[in-house]
Parts: sequence; structure tokens; C-alpha cells
Amino acid sequence: MAKTTDNLSFILNKPFDVTFAQQAKPELSSPYDVLVAINYTGICGSDVHYWEHGRIGSFILKEPMVLGHESAGTITAVGSSVTNLKVGDRVALEPGTPCRRCEPCLSGHYNLCPLMRFAATPPYGGTLTGFYLSPSDFVYKLPSHVSLQEGALLEPLAVAVHIVKQAEIKPGQSVVVMGAGPVGLLCCAVAKSYGASVVASVDIQPSRLEFAKSYAATHTFVPSRVPASENAAALLKLLDLPSGTDAVIDASGAEPSIQTSIHTVRRGGVYVQGGMGKEDINFPIMELCTKEITVKGSFRYGSGDYKLALELVSKGLVDVTKLISRTVEFTEAEQAFKDVKSGQGIKVLIKGPNEK
Amino acid sequence: MAKTTDNLSFILNKPFDVTFAQQAKPELSSPYDVLVAINYTGICGSDVHYWEHGRIGSFILKEPMVLGHESAGTITAVGSSVTNLKVGDRVALEPGTPCRRCEPCLSGHYNLCPLMRFAATPPYGGTLTGFYLSPSDFVYKLPSHVSLQEGALLEPLAVAVHIVKQAEIKPGQSVVVMGAGPVGLLCCAVAKSYGASVVASVDIQPSRLEFAKSYAATHTFVPSRVPASENAAALLKLLDLPSGTDAVIDASGAEPSIQTSIHTVRRGGVYVQGGMGKEDINFPIMELCTKEITVKGSFRYGSGDYKLALELVSKGLVDVTKLISRTVEFTEAEQAFKDVKSGQGIKVLIKGPNEK
Amino acid sequence: MAKTTDNLSFILNKPFDVTFAQQAKPELSSPYDVLVAINYTGICGSDVHYWEHGRIGSFILKEPMVLGHESAGTITAVGSSVTNLKVGDRVALEPGTPCRRCEPCLSGHYNLCPLMRFAATPPYGGTLTGFYLSPSDFVYKLPSHVSLQEGALLEPLAVAVHIVKQAEIKPGQSVVVMGAGPVGLLCCAVAKSYGASVVASVDIQPSRLEFAKSYAATHTFVPSRVPASENAAALLKLLDLPSGTDAVIDASGAEPSIQTSIHTVRRGGVYVQGGMGKEDINFPIMELCTKEITVKGSFRYGSGDYKLALELVSKGLVDVTKLISRTVEFTEAEQAFKDVKSGQGIKVLIKGPNEK
Amino acid sequence: MAKTTDNLSFILNKPFDVTFAQQAKPELSSPYDVLVAINYTGICGSDVHYWEHGRIGSFILKEPMVLGHESAGTITAVGSSVTNLKVGDRVALEPGTPCRRCEPCLSGHYNLCPLMRFAATPPYGGTLTGFYLSPSDFVYKLPSHVSLQEGALLEPLAVAVHIVKQAEIKPGQSVVVMGAGPVGLLCCAVAKSYGASVVASVDIQPSRLEFAKSYAATHTFVPSRVPASENAAALLKLLDLPSGTDAVIDASGAEPSIQTSIHTVRRGGVYVQGGMGKEDINFPIMELCTKEITVKGSFRYGSGDYKLALELVSKGLVDVTKLISRTVEFTEAEQAFKDVKSGQGIKVLIKGPNEK
Repeated sequence: MAKTTDNLSFILNKPFDVTFAQQAKPELSSPYDVLVAINYTGICGSDVHYWEHGRIGSFILKEPMVLGHESAGTITAVGSSVTNLKVGDRVALEPGTPCRRCEPCLSGHYNLCPLMRFAATPPYGGTLTGFYLSPSDFVYKLPSHVSLQEGALLEPLAVAVHIVKQAEIKPGQSVVVMGAGPVGLLCCAVAKSYGASVVASVDIQPSRLEFAKSYAATHTFVPSRVPASENAAALLKLLDLPSGTDAVIDASGAEPSIQTSIHTVRRGGVYVQGGMGKEDINFPIMELCTKEITVKGSFRYGSGDYKLALELVSKGLVDVTKLISRTVEFTEAEQAFKDVKSGQGIKVLIKGPNEK
Repeated sequence: MAKTTDNLSFILNKPFDVTFAQQAKPELSSPYDVLVAINYTGICGSDVHYWEHGRIGSFILKEPMVLGHESAGTITAVGSSVTNLKVGDRVALEPGTPCRRCEPCLSGHYNLCPLMRFAATPPYGGTLTGFYLSPSDFVYKLPSHVSLQEGALLEPLAVAVHIVKQAEIKPGQSVVVMGAGPVGLLCCAVAKSYGASVVASVDIQPSRLEFAKSYAATHTFVPSRVPASENAAALLKLLDLPSGTDAVIDASGAEPSIQTSIHTVRRGGVYVQGGMGKEDINFPIMELCTKEITVKGSFRYGSGDYKLALELVSKGLVDVTKLISRTVEFTEAEQAFKDVKSGQGIKVLIKGPNEK
Repeated sequence: MAKTTDNLSFILNKPFDVTFAQQAKPELSSPYDVLVAINYTGICGSDVHYWEHGRIGSFILKEPMVLGHESAGTITAVGSSVTNLKVGDRVALEPGTPCRRCEPCLSGHYNLCPLMRFAATPPYGGTLTGFYLSPSDFVYKLPSHVSLQEGALLEPLAVAVHIVKQAEIKPGQSVVVMGAGPVGLLCCAVAKSYGASVVASVDIQPSRLEFAKSYAATHTFVPSRVPASENAAALLKLLDLPSGTDAVIDASGAEPSIQTSIHTVRRGGVYVQGGMGKEDINFPIMELCTKEITVKGSFRYGSGDYKLALELVSKGLVDVTKLISRTVEFTEAEQAFKDVKSGQGIKVLIKGPNEK
Repeated sequence: MAKTTDNLSFILNKPFDVTFAQQAKPELSSPYDVLVAINYTGICGSDVHYWEHGRIGSFILKEPMVLGHESAGTITAVGSSVTNLKVGDRVALEPGTPCRRCEPCLSGHYNLCPLMRFAATPPYGGTLTGFYLSPSDFVYKLPSHVSLQEGALLEPLAVAVHIVKQAEIKPGQSVVVMGAGPVGLLCCAVAKSYGASVVASVDIQPSRLEFAKSYAATHTFVPSRVPASENAAALLKLLDLPSGTDAVIDASGAEPSIQTSIHTVRRGGVYVQGGMGKEDINFPIMELCTKEITVKGSFRYGSGDYKLALELVSKGLVDVTKLISRTVEFTEAEQAFKDVKSGQGIKVLIKGPNEK
């Protein structure tokens, strides 16, 4: 039957076991839906983590699942109530659909919706597929000067936007970003667009810091194998900020980085946990208490984040293209996952199955 | 000389070595100063800690220091620019004077002033003395229906007010308070005055919880020796709040309490570290991240806290008298410290040296 | 046909022209819907305004419309996806359904949704009918100790809750409420539940102020025919608050009240426009500017407001029953409108057509 | 006597009556004071207003007063407790000293201090003088690459910073600025540094708008003599923002601008009254109410504003030099006032009496 043969997808069966298979092409199920032909999909650390481990926290792969959630595509069908989009529009996809009815949804925090249906998070399929169905308010039309590749990059950029919003960065402030992977780099760029005067990138790999410096960081720092308070002191000396920085963002998930962060932020400053890592870590809680630091988690993205991500790209305030190391054919998806796992490049894009 | 013989003080020389001695009676040094004859002083855990250890964190006793900082007294002299107070006024003393010129001070966060002169915090002397000098804007006139004993209790109440403000408690919300010592109990009472519907007191001592229930808690809970997530689950089952509580306040400083707290607070909720304990603890950082919990420290008290503490007592919204276990003569101060250390009573007051 | 004869409704045809008529009984149209048999409906000033004028602002009656939107009822049917409610549950009805997809909705401000379908606001029918259809997340189950009459009163109480939230009232603060009609009185009560120490009710009718004093106000004030600044000065003298009050709420819509309010609020204080009145008024804009007053509008109610209204009633913090002047049969609805227009009583309830 | 002959000052005796006279050179009166030799002073609209009318609101000239408050200078003496500044440092002067002891001061809102001593605001003298005394925390050291002329311009820039902070501008937002005088222009520039995507300048003088467009505005608009709602509609059509703008700032004080502003801002948006004008105006209060607009006043500048103003200039984010139309000798001060009154140029600087 046609339906099962026109929607090639990249499917995770179990850890390290992936296949390409045709799946049913989705059909509009609500008058507010749009159908999107996927053009490009970026690979995220969480995709690789599912591929390796079959789970992240309490999300456990129980049956085969399409991977991928950082995508842009072209609209091929729109529901009868959709007024702001039409067939042929090029769009970025926000890959999670909340329930719209729970307390977090009604109070403007849909990223905390317990019923969230998020692409490539078990049991929901992802976007490494031919066609993907989405509610029309979760796709964003790209202006003509924004490419589909940039559109795919809006996903990690929206992650960074949400983190920087949580950090309450204001013009003239100083911020340290722990970790110079894709999200850390984008946090640096977004912090700059928020007017931060000092944006320090911290990583253990000097090559990443070189890129960070050329990209968006005003300062870079390689931590040493010394106690967190000593790394913090050395970093603050470098920045000439003896009272500490206004904010620190962790985009590494690494225990030593988190500890250093708390010693780096000033009295009354803000720390945001953006990176994922060990469930429990050794944490300088009294430093937090006596300096009245505010610590916040940042989880995915919420109201207005995708819109702002698109605005930042559209206005040229953040250049996401520099992060694209390589673009590969859909059929090379498995090899691309292997390359990302081995640390090659910053961001790899996979073409949609129908993309030339 | 008169000066050295009219101001009897209770002085800590070194750990477990205290003496009573006359000290110079302070003189007005600014037109905005007032001189206060101390009537009552409560003993705080930090006083006992200095008595035992001679230090708290980086504050280290290097020379003899007068103890005490929870005091109320009677004004005996006012500077020429003081217009809102007069000799004979009964007042509560806010025992820390900030520099008024640094960034924290100018931005309304004087409790974070790095130059704070805080009573009984090395090298600054405390209030277990006959006469104490204070800027007039850091003493609060007691209405006639508020006693001097209540005035002394405004200090721990202001600590609780600051914690509850940090927790952003709103009417109808649910809050858990870890620890049922004086500050924990006062946090329960203040949270209720903020309109909290559920105020759960958690402690390992059932007798304290009995008091908490009779005082301000709507629920009480004794944690078990099980993992934090299990204690949290049992607590939330008791409260019939499967999604978690709006806020959790720690007034214990205990590692297991802090861990349980993070598992207890709802997505998007607030946790406040009020209690002092170990410098570093094992902390469920990913739970914080994925639930987007906001964690804040709470340090002493700041703008408006003493004023609100007085208002809560004055309007009968918080009854601090129930916390006073005993009032002793000035000359019994050392024994009172021993009794507090051994856990006798909730709050002990020491009369001023001139108090009948 | 049965459908058209089992749902008696009270219909406004045009100003002062109302009829009782059977309408189609609604049927569940979504798996998240519930059907509610209306037990009680309060009459609101806006209902009376439509009855008199056929319009409010840009909302204009173009075809016959069922009146009423302050209702409580009993569930008679639930959709297949409804898990938190069952047939027979007694509920309060939040009478507006937002689109859930626009920017205000997704950002937690659904009361600002431009596509809001609000009961008894043209072209949407109201609740003075036998059966009313609602999404399940906009009905609130009443605990057994809360009556259906109280449930109907949650609507004006939610209006007051939203206003007081906008006013950012905190414990110990002072607030003036202009107007002692139902919403003004409820604002006084809610402000008290938020811990306000001073709650002054202002009205030109002394009898209303007598009630306000017995109900929730700590002070009352009758303004004179003098300039606004003089009324403000007299009011502040009465309250012994020479620097102004922390907040002023207008629940009157009257130009002189609004002017007096701006002169009454302290530097850095908050003023909330809750009452509806003339489109344009003479306004002391420089007073606002130099005192850095924050002025906010308050429109209907939003996320969490109904839930808190129910909590306040359930916990006994606000007594809405005192506001119920009279309860009449459904067939007496027109007379009830006439009585409300002539100023009789505070709040009149109309029984549902099937209520004994 | 030496003292009275070495501090030439420009003094307003009464409206339109100014003189140059020697005054006592101030001496350090506190260990925290610094003495500053004035190099440049800008003329502000309020200076001209005092010169013309002898009063602004309740501030009334009763005895001769030195004019001027937008100044930068060079430190000639420092008190014994001053550690962050030394003789010879080039500094910008924040020209108001608060009491540091009242509720607004202690809560971080010193611009609302009722005891504020503000330069050239009766009865306090201004900075059109040779030497001016200031507390050291209200002068800001200029980096070597920031000129003294730029330092003088920090005053109006700090006004704009405070206004933009009140407007809560965030990256990607749209803002309209009413009035293209110095403060309006600087608001445009600061809004851009805050990341605003759309910055529309509105004025009745096309030549000012031309400058605004070349300076910092993305759009410009000349209002017509039509009702405010029509001007708003035309403006929003130009901006392609049918739902309204996120914020509107008034830097004009003009009644029609204020009215148009309220019709221009979106539901839930912010309006800031920065401009001074008529005490009372006709105001669309119901538009504010039903759209839940937040209206704020902005008065001078407060905590952190000068610091940020300096940072914006230092980092090249705002170019204030473009606003300087002309720099004149101290002895030409009166003519400069006449020129400003007649609308010549944007900002005129007057050299200090000792400036070559």
C-alpha cells in the first residue's frame, strides 16, 4: 500500500541497532495541523545517547522509534483552520507538542507539561523521516533570507535562548559559559545578543575554545585539576572581576564545572543548569546559601523561544551556519551518528530522504 | 574611669572560655545614631557555634568578642538628626549595619554587603552588653502592645520572613519546611501569614513536630532512613500532592533533608536554602534541571524584613511568645548557652545586665 | 424535536427585550468536554449593561444571546478523555474558553486571547440556560463543604483575585479599594487574605461602607467634592500613611476615584484599574511619572485565578455567602435584572431552570 | 578671601536673570567625598525650564542657584576613605545624592528618595561651576578611551537607560519611542543595545526623524492631526505589527503622543512615561484596562544606571558624540541657554570655567 512505502525513516530498534524503513505517511488529523516534508535534521547529543543506551533517565526505548528532532522542512498540506501557513512554506519545526490543558501549559510553561509529546523521546517518533505532522503553532515560517539549514539549527539555538532567558542576562553584564559544545557556543552568542559585555567560554579542549573565541566569546579559560574554588579564583582574575560574575551557565553537565560555577558567580548572581550529566553531584550548597545565589534548571524551550531564535538568525545577531561542520545524505545517517559520537565536527546535518 | 565600669558585657575569649567584664559604654558617633540599653537577648544557634568553635566559615574569632545579636532595648540617647525616635522608646535592634555605598547596598540587597558590620560576628561585638550603639534606621520602635521579649524575637522572625520572601509563597500554595527548630517553626508561621494552604513541618524529632502542629503546621512528617526520593514520595502522598509542592524551605541544613526537598518540589517550583550545615553535599542536580526548579539561598535579612516581622507580631499574625522557653538573668548567660547546646527548650532569653 | 425543548434559556433579543425559550441542549463535541446542568447563576453588572445597552465597547449584540456567566452546576456528561471529573460532580464554571494556540495563550495570559469565547459576550451565549458545555479544564470541582451558591460566586471572586494579583499585594502592605460593589468588596477580602494590614474601602454610599467594614475593610472613607489631591490627603491622614499607600485598586471605574487613586499611592507603588467606566478620563500623568507609579489594567481572570478563588472559599479565608442578597427562580430572571439595575442588594442569584 | 574667588559659577538669580560669580570652593566634608574640577557640562531641558520659569512642579527657586547637572570632570581631592579613585582621575558625575536611610534608599530605589539632593534643583546648587563635591560612589571613572565630553553625556544616557529598563525591553521586541529630542534618541539607541528588533521613532519634525533614522531608529513616523487610535493604526500598519508593539516609550510629554501610545502597545505590553509635560491629560484608561497594559513612570536614574550608561559608551554600543552639536566657553553659558531654548542643535556642552 502506498502509505507504507512513501515515508522513509531512520529507526532505532535497540542500542546500536538502526534500520531504514518505510513508514506510513502521516495524515492531517486536526484542522490546525500541517504536514511537513523534512529537508534537514541536525544530530543532537540526546539522539546519540538514545542510539547508544536506548534511554535517557526515565525515558526508555521499548519499541522501535524514529530518531531526530532538530529539523526544518517544507509544508505539503495544511488543515482547514490554518491561516498563517500555506503549502510550499519553508519552516522550522518545534519538535514538542504539549497538552495545552494542564497547569504548566495554562500558566505559560508548556516545556514542563507532563504529557508533552516530544519527537524522538520514547514513545514518540522523531523527524529523521520523510514527512512529519505538527500543529501549525509549532512550526515557524522562515523568511526568504533564512536557509533551511539555518532552520534546522533553530532547535539548539532555542535551547540556548531558553537557558539565557533563565540566566536573566542584561546588557553590560558578565557571564561564564561552561562547555563549548554546540549549546555552549550558542549560549555565548545569545548572551552577546542580550548585551552581555563579558562572555567567557570555559572548556577543557583548547581547540573548542579557539573556535569559541572566534565565534562569540570575549574570554576563554581552560580549567586545571585543582579545587573548584581555585579554578574560580583564576577565572575571576582573568576576567578582572574579583566580586564574581553576574551569571554562570553550565552547558557541560560536568561535576567540576558545576562546582566551579558556584564559586564563580557573584553574591546575588544567577547560575543556570543547562547541561545534562550525572544525576547527583557534590555541590557547594553553603556557598549558594551565603551568597544568595539563584540556581535554575533549564529544560528544552518554551513560550517565545523559537520565535526569538528565528529573530536572532533573521536579524544576523547569531550566525548558526558557522556551527555546521558537514551535511550528509539521509542514507548516511548511521555513519553520521558514529562520527558525532567520536567527536568529529560541531554540528552534522542529515538531509531528508527526499532532499536532493 | 566611669566609662569602663558601666557597661557589663558577656565576652567570648576563645572556645568555651567566656567572661563577664565591664566595657566602655559607647557614645553617639554620628547624628543618626541612637544608644540602646539592652533589655532582652535571645540565644541563636550561631552564638552557640561561636562559643563552641570560635568560628563560622571564614569568620574567625581572633580577639575577645561580645556575644549575642537577638535583642530589644530602650533608647537612652539619640543623635541630633534623629527625628523618628526619642529617649525611652522601646525598640527592636536589627543587628547588622551595612556600608550603604557598595553595589549590593545601593541596589537594595544590603544583606549581601561585603562590608557588613554584624553583631557578634568577628571582629564586631554583639549585644549581650549593657548599651549598644546603632544607626537609627536599624532600630524599630515597638508599639505599646508589643513586649520587649517579643522585640528580641523579631530577629529570628526576620530570618524567617526573608526565607519565605525568597520562597515567593503566595496564597493557596503548598510549602514544606525542613527542620522544626526556631527558624523552621517561624517559617511555618510566616508561610501561613502569606496565605499558604498547606504548611508541612518535617523533622526527625516527633516532639518538635507535635509543637509545630500546635503552632503553625497543617501537616507533619518524620522522614525514614530511605532514599530521598522515597521520603519525598511518602511526604507527597501524605499531602495528597502527587505533582509536588509549590515550595520547599530548608531550615535544617541537613544533607538528607536537602536531597528530599529537591524531590518534593514540583516542576517549576522553588527551593530555599535557609539552614546552615555542611559546606558541600551530594545534590540531585538533574532533578533540578529537568524540573526547572529555582533554588535560592537566604542569608540573614534585608530591606523591609524587620518591618514586616514587627507588623506580623503587632497584628497578631505570628505569635513569637510561644517559642520562649525560659528567660534568665544576665549573670546566667553561660549556663543558658550550655542549656541551648544540650537542646533544652526552643528559645532562651537573657535579660540585659541592668534589667530587673 | 426533543433537542429544542429541553434546555430553557433566558435570552436577550435587544435592549430591554428578553424572552425565555427552549434551545438545543448542547452535546459533547470533544473528548475533553463536559456537560453541566446549571444550578445557580449570579447577575453581573456586565449582564445588566448588555440588557440595557446591547453592547459593551466593541462587543455588540447582533442576534439574540443567552445572558449570564457566573454559574455553578452539576456534571451530566463527560467526554472520553476526561479523567478528573465524573457525572454528578458539583462544579464552578469558568465561563471563557481561550484558543490555546495564540501568543497570549501559549505564554500564560489566556485572558488576553483575541479569540476568547466568553459566555454572554456577543456572539457567544451565556449560562442562564439549562445545560452548558465546557472544556473540562475550565470547570472546578467543588469540595463537599462548598455549596453551589458559593460556586457561582467564584466568578466575581476570581475577578477580584486577578485584580489583587495585579496589585502585587504582600503581607503587611496597605491598600485602598475604590468602590464597594461586589468586586470591590471581594478585592478587600482577597487583599486581606494576601496579608494586607490596611485595607481601606472608599465609596460615596455610606451604607456600602458599613457593610465593607463589617466584611473585610479595616478603614472606610467617603470622598468629598474637592480636588483629587485633597481627597487623597484626607484619606492618607485617616490611614496615618503620609507617604502614601502601597497599592490602590479601582473597582469603581469613576473618574474622580481614579484621579484620587494616583494621588494616594506612594512613590514606587502600584495602581490597578479593575473597574469599567468612561473610555477616556482626565488623568494625573505627571504624578505617575515622578512617583514612578506602576499602573496596570486587570481584565477578567487567568491562569490559576479560579483555582485560588476556590481555595480561598474552601479554606474559609473569604466568605462569599455574605454577599448573596437573594436567590430567585429562573422564571424571575427579568425582574432580578430590574432589581439589580435599581441597586437592590449586593448579589442576586438565579436558580437554573431545573433547580428546585 | 581666597575661598570666594576661586570657583567661578553660573548662577540663576530669577527667571531670565543669570550672573557669573565666584563662590566658595567646596571642601571635603566626609572621608568618602571627592572634589571634582568640572570640565564639561551639557544643557538639559530642565535647566532651560528653570532659567525661564524659576520652577518645575513643586521645586521653586527661592534664592540664587548654580545651574547645570550634566557634567564630567577631573578629581582634585579625595577623602581618606576613598580607595577606588585618585587625584587626576577623569570622571562622570551622577548629580543626585540620596539620604541612604529611607525606605526607597534601603530598598534599592534611591531615585525615589524624598530627601534627594539633586544638582540644580532648588535649593541645591548645580555643576556649572569650577569645583563640585560628590560622594565617591556617585562618580564614575572614565576609561582612557572615553572622553570627558562623552562623560558629560552619560547623564541623559542614564535617563534613557532607566526608561528602557522600566520598559523591560528584551531581544527581538518592538518598541516605539515618542519624541526625537536627546532623551528620545538615546532611548532608541539603548533599546537597540537591549536587542530590540523594531525601534520606531515618532516626532512631528521630519528633520529630527532623519537624524533618528541615521542614529538608531529602524523606522520613523510623523503623526497626523487625526484621533490617537488612527495614528496608532497607521503606525502599526507601517511596522507590520497588527497586534501592537511590545513597548512604547514616551520621551515627549505631549498629550497626543501619550494617547497614541496606549493605542499602539499590544495586549499585555508596557508603556513608560519618560517625558515631562502637562500635569493632567486626557487618557484612554479603558484601553489600558482591557488590554492589561502596564504603565510605568520613569524618574531620573537609579541603581546601576550610570554604570550601564558608561558600559554602553565604553563598549561602543551607544555613540553619544553624534548628539553633541556644539561646545562653548563657560563665559558663553547664557547665550548657550538662549540657543537651546530656540531649538538649535541637539546637545550643547559648556566648558568648565578652568577648561582650556
